[in-house]
Amino acid sequence: MRRAVYPGSYDPATNGHVDVIRRAAGLFDELVVAVMINKNKKGLFTVDERIDMLSQATEDVPNVRMDSWHGLLVEYCRQQEIETIVKGLRAVSDFDYELQMAQMNQQLSGVETLFMSPNPLYSYLSSSLVKEVATYGGDVSHLVPENVHKRLTERLTES
Amino acid sequence: MRRAVYPGSYDPATNGHVDVIRRAAGLFDELVVAVMINKNKKGLFTVDERIDMLSQATEDVPNVRMDSWHGLLVEYCRQQEIETIVKGLRAVSDFDYELQMAQMNQQLSGVETLFMSPNPLYSYLSSSLVKEVATYGGDVSHLVPENVHKRLTERLTES
Amino acid sequence: MRRAVYPGSYDPATNGHVDVIRRAAGLFDELVVAVMINKNKKGLFTVDERIDMLSQATEDVPNVRMDSWHGLLVEYCRQQEIETIVKGLRAVSDFDYELQMAQMNQQLSGVETLFMSPNPLYSYLSSSLVKEVATYGGDVSHLVPENVHKRLTERLTES
Amino acid sequence: MRRAVYPGSYDPATNGHVDVIRRAAGLFDELVVAVMINKNKKGLFTVDERIDMLSQATEDVPNVRMDSWHGLLVEYCRQQEIETIVKGLRAVSDFDYELQMAQMNQQLSGVETLFMSPNPLYSYLSSSLVKEVATYGGDVSHLVPENVHKRLTERLTES
Amino acid sequence: MRRAVYPGSYDPATNGHVDVIRRAAGLFDELVVAVMINKNKKGLFTVDERIDMLSQATEDVPNVRMDSWHGLLVEYCRQQEIETIVKGLRAVSDFDYELQMAQMNQQLSGVETLFMSPNPLYSYLSSSLVKEVATYGGDVSHLVPENVHKRLTERLTES
Amino acid sequence: MRRAVYPGSYDPATNGHVDVIRRAAGLFDELVVAVMINKNKKGLFTVDERIDMLSQATEDVPNVRMDSWHGLLVEYCRQQEIETIVKGLRAVSDFDYELQMAQMNQQLSGVETLFMSPNPLYSYLSSSLVKEVATYGGDVSHLVPENVHKRLTERLTES
Repeated sequence: MRRAVYPGSYDPATNGHVDVIRRAAGLFDELVVAVMINKNKKGLFTVDERIDMLSQATEDVPNVRMDSWHGLLVEYCRQQEIETIVKGLRAVSDFDYELQMAQMNQQLSGVETLFMSPNPLYSYLSSSLVKEVATYGGDVSHLVPENVHKRLTERLTES
Repeated sequence: MRRAVYPGSYDPATNGHVDVIRRAAGLFDELVVAVMINKNKKGLFTVDERIDMLSQATEDVPNVRMDSWHGLLVEYCRQQEIETIVKGLRAVSDFDYELQMAQMNQQLSGVETLFMSPNPLYSYLSSSLVKEVATYGGDVSHLVPENVHKRLTERLTES
Repeated sequence: MRRAVYPGSYDPATNGHVDVIRRAAGLFDELVVAVMINKNKKGLFTVDERIDMLSQATEDVPNVRMDSWHGLLVEYCRQQEIETIVKGLRAVSDFDYELQMAQMNQQLSGVETLFMSPNPLYSYLSSSLVKEVATYGGDVSHLVPENVHKRLTERLTES
Repeated sequence: MRRAVYPGSYDPATNGHVDVIRRAAGLFDELVVAVMINKNKKGLFTVDERIDMLSQATEDVPNVRMDSWHGLLVEYCRQQEIETIVKGLRAVSDFDYELQMAQMNQQLSGVETLFMSPNPLYSYLSSSLVKEVATYGGDVSHLVPENVHKRLTERLTES
Repeated sequence: MRRAVYPGSYDPATNGHVDVIRRAAGLFDELVVAVMINKNKKGLFTVDERIDMLSQATEDVPNVRMDSWHGLLVEYCRQQEIETIVKGLRAVSDFDYELQMAQMNQQLSGVETLFMSPNPLYSYLSSSLVKEVATYGGDVSHLVPENVHKRLTERLTES
Repeated sequence: MRRAVYPGSYDPATNGHVDVIRRAAGLFDELVVAVMINKNKKGLFTVDERIDMLSQATEDVPNVRMDSWHGLLVEYCRQQEIETIVKGLRAVSDFDYELQMAQMNQQLSGVETLFMSPNPLYSYLSSSLVKEVATYGGDVSHLVPENVHKRLTERLTES
């Protein structure tokens, strides 16, 4: 069985993330979407909320499951017997850091990282850009899944 | 009437900023230099001080005016009926983020972003580099307008 | 009157070029699309054919006209009293060369270059990629204007 | 069955290519190494020679086979029922072009491209660099498989 | 006498730093490794600890000495009569900022910056990546000098 | 004695080259400017003409001498007992290739490559850009040494 993990912070998931999930799920027998927990950085959504939103936005994709992890990604891969990490590669500025991480992870554990190109439609998208625009009242309904849009609007109204 | 906005934090303006202002002012009927307010980041100068310094440094350019804005730049453009954003593009590391912002802004509002090349003389200049050098007593008199240099020296002596 | 030139080889025009033409035409009183003649490089289409295809694909845009030029672009700008060059900036690998050309042109003549972001949908498009795919029988109908697609198919069948 | 193709010109294969082949073979049920034929470019080795050298250098990897192809890579994938293209991503300068090709191929056919990081040891390696160094008598024995080194020395002595 | 300074934060030194020190020491009569003090950023190790670890890891290199500095690097160079700054250039994302600093320093003082390529083996290494991996219990023994590994393990166990 | 070589094609030398020569000459006891001969590429000037122009443009710099070489640069270094290669690093697009060459040369021979930042004034300059502009009658007198300008004008009038 070929399994891969697609790690990220997903705070919240964008259409770009969902697009990568759908495409990557077609290439592996199982795809785990792992919300990486960063204790030093308070997110807009809790980890559970992020997983909820991801699950709902991809509920029609059968071989995807959600999880969360705090620690080294390669340790997660070892425990879960996952041999491949999937990453979306959006921009040149991501490239250097991601390549360094990939080489480090390969050397630490033998786990390989496979990079996917973004859908051109979403190449400029990031969670932080979406939050920045939404905070100031810009319309992001075409940039995130419908359920994310609803929760994002609620959350920003609360605060 | 062709109007453009040149947004930035200008904390403080450098010779590079003033060079772009002069060149961009020649290409549009009116150029608005907009100090973008970031409530999460305390600057070295207040927004009013930044506007003052910019105004003085460009007082001989007739079709430039200063303003400040807190919120989405494209909302400012809508209110002010501005159809173009002007940006200086200094380095490849700026490129990705700026392209993403430009595409986001274009999709949100139809407002276009036009990127200008820097004057090679000032291609290595940034406000933060100027502040870092000046803080440690380095001579930045050839890197910022004369009035900025005077105020910068005063401010750094105060603190 | 604000005039700009959008130079290129357009062998042939893609949807990406047409998108930049439409968007740039909205920012200037007149936009000249200039086919730059390179005597050392035989194109797939003659300069006249390229101009024909461009004209047809943008015939609904009132303030655009086509021209061709052999020589320095800034000399063309001088003769035509054009103060601005417009360029699409697709990828980081374009960035360095284009910035160098822009700085050279600015120093030679004072003519400024303004860079526009690509429509994300067409960010991966180039004339040479289109020709390569079409040569091997790939479907490029969604990548070029309809009239270009028709002529491209004819041309590749002839040869 | 998960199958992938690793395309290239392999004129000749380097240790970097062989490293990617070994690592990619571990991630798929079958890996096809496809020598892409470019009729406009005379190589140092014939396509058959390149395939021979590749086969020999990877003969201990069970699920790899060699092939050659002239035409669109996605057409090859369609005929061979391959759903994934594997590429090594060595340097930022490769990145833009490769991303454009990946997006084009995805749109033409649905075939996905997965990029792998290079082994840091071989990150500076390319076939052309190897040939350049070997042509002038430099020692490349640690940069290419032993059989490639032997043939390369013979070929360069002949000519 | 040709002297150079190799500045950094070295919190802690990696095998990549030690490799640059050894190679650079061969090119100058004296090489000063200067730990730059950043009062706004609490490190994992004190400046003295960093110097200790660096000294021990390079004790067999005769013409290297350690120092620390708080302030402008070019002021340090002036006081110490050093005419050259040495930097390792690991990735494109470093490139822009480092080039800007080099040009700024050259203009402020005439001191030149010389950039060295990394050993490919260590091209993906950085102090922060090492700390991140070690914090989560990953094995970094092949990435840092032995004495650094020992102290790093102790420090992370303490906290 | 610290010696370095500054290799290039210098067809012809620009102000950017001369600037690097002057600055690098200050950092080494002797600087050799080596015109690399490429038999596959006919230049605008012969190798002797290039050396003549370089010599004249730097005749006031005492510790510089000119040479030419056909073959591996590291073999030249070995024969001449040179331990350092100096390169100007103008743009990100140069960076990858130059880093690969530097790592290859270091592994082949132990010879190190040191990269210098360009003078910002000349950061957009290249021999090919100068020739392109001059060919079409553009004024390049401020971009190349006076003697190069004179010969360039003569050469382009002849042909």
